[in-house]
Amino acid sequence: MQPKLAIVAGGGSLPIALAEACRKNERPYFLLGLEGFAEPGRLEGHPHRWGRIGAVGRVVETIREEAALEVVFAGHVRRPSLASLRPDLFTVRLLARAGARALGDDGLMRHIVRAFEAEGLRVVEVSSVLADALAPPGPLGALAPDESALEDIRRGLEVAKALGRADAGQAVVVQQGIVLAIEAAEGTDRMVARAACLRREGPGGVLVKVAKPQQDRRMDLPVVGPATVDAAAAAGLRGIAVEAGGVLVLARDAAIRPADEAGLFVTGAEPASGTPRRLS
Amino acid sequence: MQPKLAIVAGGGSLPIALAEACRKNERPYFLLGLEGFAEPGRLEGHPHRWGRIGAVGRVVETIREEAALEVVFAGHVRRPSLASLRPDLFTVRLLARAGARALGDDGLMRHIVRAFEAEGLRVVEVSSVLADALAPPGPLGALAPDESALEDIRRGLEVAKALGRADAGQAVVVQQGIVLAIEAAEGTDRMVARAACLRREGPGGVLVKVAKPQQDRRMDLPVVGPATVDAAAAAGLRGIAVEAGGVLVLARDAAIRPADEAGLFVTGAEPASGTPRRLS
Repeated sequence: MQPKLAIVAGGGSLPIALAEACRKNERPYFLLGLEGFAEPGRLEGHPHRWGRIGAVGRVVETIREEAALEVVFAGHVRRPSLASLRPDLFTVRLLARAGARALGDDGLMRHIVRAFEAEGLRVVEVSSVLADALAPPGPLGALAPDESALEDIRRGLEVAKALGRADAGQAVVVQQGIVLAIEAAEGTDRMVARAACLRREGPGGVLVKVAKPQQDRRMDLPVVGPATVDAAAAAGLRGIAVEAGGVLVLARDAAIRPADEAGLFVTGAEPASGTPRRLS
Repeated sequence: MQPKLAIVAGGGSLPIALAEACRKNERPYFLLGLEGFAEPGRLEGHPHRWGRIGAVGRVVETIREEAALEVVFAGHVRRPSLASLRPDLFTVRLLARAGARALGDDGLMRHIVRAFEAEGLRVVEVSSVLADALAPPGPLGALAPDESALEDIRRGLEVAKALGRADAGQAVVVQQGIVLAIEAAEGTDRMVARAACLRREGPGGVLVKVAKPQQDRRMDLPVVGPATVDAAAAAGLRGIAVEAGGVLVLARDAAIRPADEAGLFVTGAEPASGTPRRLS
């Protein structure tokens, strides 16, 4: 039997998808909801406890009390400012090791993973729990991007990867070569909504979402799901391209069906090769 | 006497600042307002004619009719989609030379400059007309950034330059190392307004604006002015850092006075050196 899994849960549906996968596979688990990020209503019906993002020491203790040996981080967390963090002693030490510049950096995430591992916990990737969640290359639904959409995808991958290298965002909307909107702290869905106000005449834009090149894959892999498809359809986009092997597609059936109905493509693209792969 | 200057005018106050500089220096000039971008009310009181962004051939002809030998491009232009361009023959040829991918790229701007020069016109930099408009290094007003603001400026320069290299934006807002907002097609003021909704507790963020590393300095140099200062103050920012020698500061007195009053710094920073220069 697999060891008990602690799902450290931010906002959104990813933590629940993990919990449901554990339940289905009869793997022991509990959700550790992060106050202010995990939504209480969603945690009901699953074994869960609560923790605070500034109290990493207490979070580790709770995981020990629950006798979980593996940990997975999942869901949105709005990175707090130092002023709002109210860190416990463990967290103060962690921040001291990470250095003053780490807040807002991938570096902080790496230090958190290391600190958990120093406490004897094994931090695992979301994709190790949620098999088949990583986007494969090529179209996921009935539709595939045409040549002009492929151009926008290529441009979007270029910009999003540059952003990712600077550790500053993971998603962009491109229409006919024009970068309409770039994501920072507001999140993908609000960025997509903004793109609706900026769109030009002609065929709609494409949402492109990638993983940061340097990112620790055990933290914070980007996600798209049904809500992303709804936002893209409402904004008049033509489709969504996610980095194959770098972005999680949640509730794939529930996401792809409305995309097909709305006439949107959803496709896995590969930045490394310069142009996204096309299956037709 | 200097040759007559054609000011090809998009939106905002930069074209008028150039017109006023010409008038003051008794240099002959006229404004060529771009339909849909230049604001008719602002052009009144200056010699002006109108042109269309898709009709580059007609614009060149108008400049010839006015016997202007030098041309300066100034003001906001929302790059149009191909569908809305309705190009004249000259523009079709220009786009064919630039290639299908050029729309939305710096490359298009370079081709426009080249096409004007092939017609015997000399395209000049804004800073050659508007002396002293380029930001110098160091604080422009009464206030200077403190250590923590300098950290945010350093981070902002890093992200904005990465964006600029990808030709996808010129401005970001950073608060305590967290990149709150990134500019794409919406323009700086709307991006700054968005940052207000994303701000964390603690000292406010910093707006950082730079030139693209590869940009033709005769086109589209970034600008800050009184409206930027107002937007930054309304969004609760601590200050504005612009790339020294790469960003135009318009109406400097009118911009700096309200910044001083609102307690905002406005400073010229140098990305090349890694950290912004500090004068104290």
